[in-house]
Amino acid sequence: MSYDENNVFARILRGELPSYKVYETEHVLVFMDVMPRSAGHMLVIPKAKARNILDIGQGELQHVFSAVQLMSRLAKEALGADGVSIIQSNEGAGGQIVFHMHVHVIPRWNGIELKPHSGVMEDAEVLASTAERYREALSRLKG
Amino acid sequence: MSYDENNVFARILRGELPSYKVYETEHVLVFMDVMPRSAGHMLVIPKAKARNILDIGQGELQHVFSAVQLMSRLAKEALGADGVSIIQSNEGAGGQIVFHMHVHVIPRWNGIELKPHSGVMEDAEVLASTAERYREALSRLKG
Repeated sequence: MSYDENNVFARILRGELPSYKVYETEHVLVFMDVMPRSAGHMLVIPKAKARNILDIGQGELQHVFSAVQLMSRLAKEALGADGVSIIQSNEGAGGQIVFHMHVHVIPRWNGIELKPHSGVMEDAEVLASTAERYREALSRLKG
Repeated sequence: MSYDENNVFARILRGELPSYKVYETEHVLVFMDVMPRSAGHMLVIPKAKARNILDIGQGELQHVFSAVQLMSRLAKEALGADGVSIIQSNEGAGGQIVFHMHVHVIPRWNGIELKPHSGVMEDAEVLASTAERYREALSRLKG
């Protein structure tokens, strides 16, 4: 399968669409999922053009999962999450909707079920303020 | 949270419990999930003692996800999967049941939903023959 240059995450990477940024390096971008399955649901993506785990290069893969680990720790630090669910979907059969490699980092709390994909946008103020809490806590976590 | 030396995957690694092995290196072990959510459902675990993504070392994390990528490709090669779902659960709140770091690699086919956790053991013959198909295909994939 080839890479679609106009998928929504490619457009976010090119700055053509906005996102609520949490973290960025030379290799990865982390931003809020606008249809979250829990409070604080983030997406980690490589900057490299990769469709999913089947075609991504080894080096880029490592950068992505290093960031997934950091964001998992951040979910505990920033939001007091009790746990984290990591989901990564490949091809339509695997649940992939946007065809740029991405990993869901979903903060979890005891006794609260994972919400199904709702298709409903979260309130912009909630997304912005959660991203801000993440960025503030990140400086503590890395410091 | 500390590492429980007697979790079921630690016992598999020590050879105290059997498993249907798919792949093994110095750093990782891959074996069949005996309560699969789809045909060919595998688990990738580090040999190092890690509870989950929150405490695993950087190097071990990379070995685990390199194997996850290889096993995802293997699911297509060996079973003709149309896609793959990757799930990794951290702490009880995140859905973790066995407290040794593990990644679910779940082959997917178009039009077939992911089964819920059933708690029902798959037939031993099915598990053994699928593991065998994986091992045979792995030699093609790596060759």
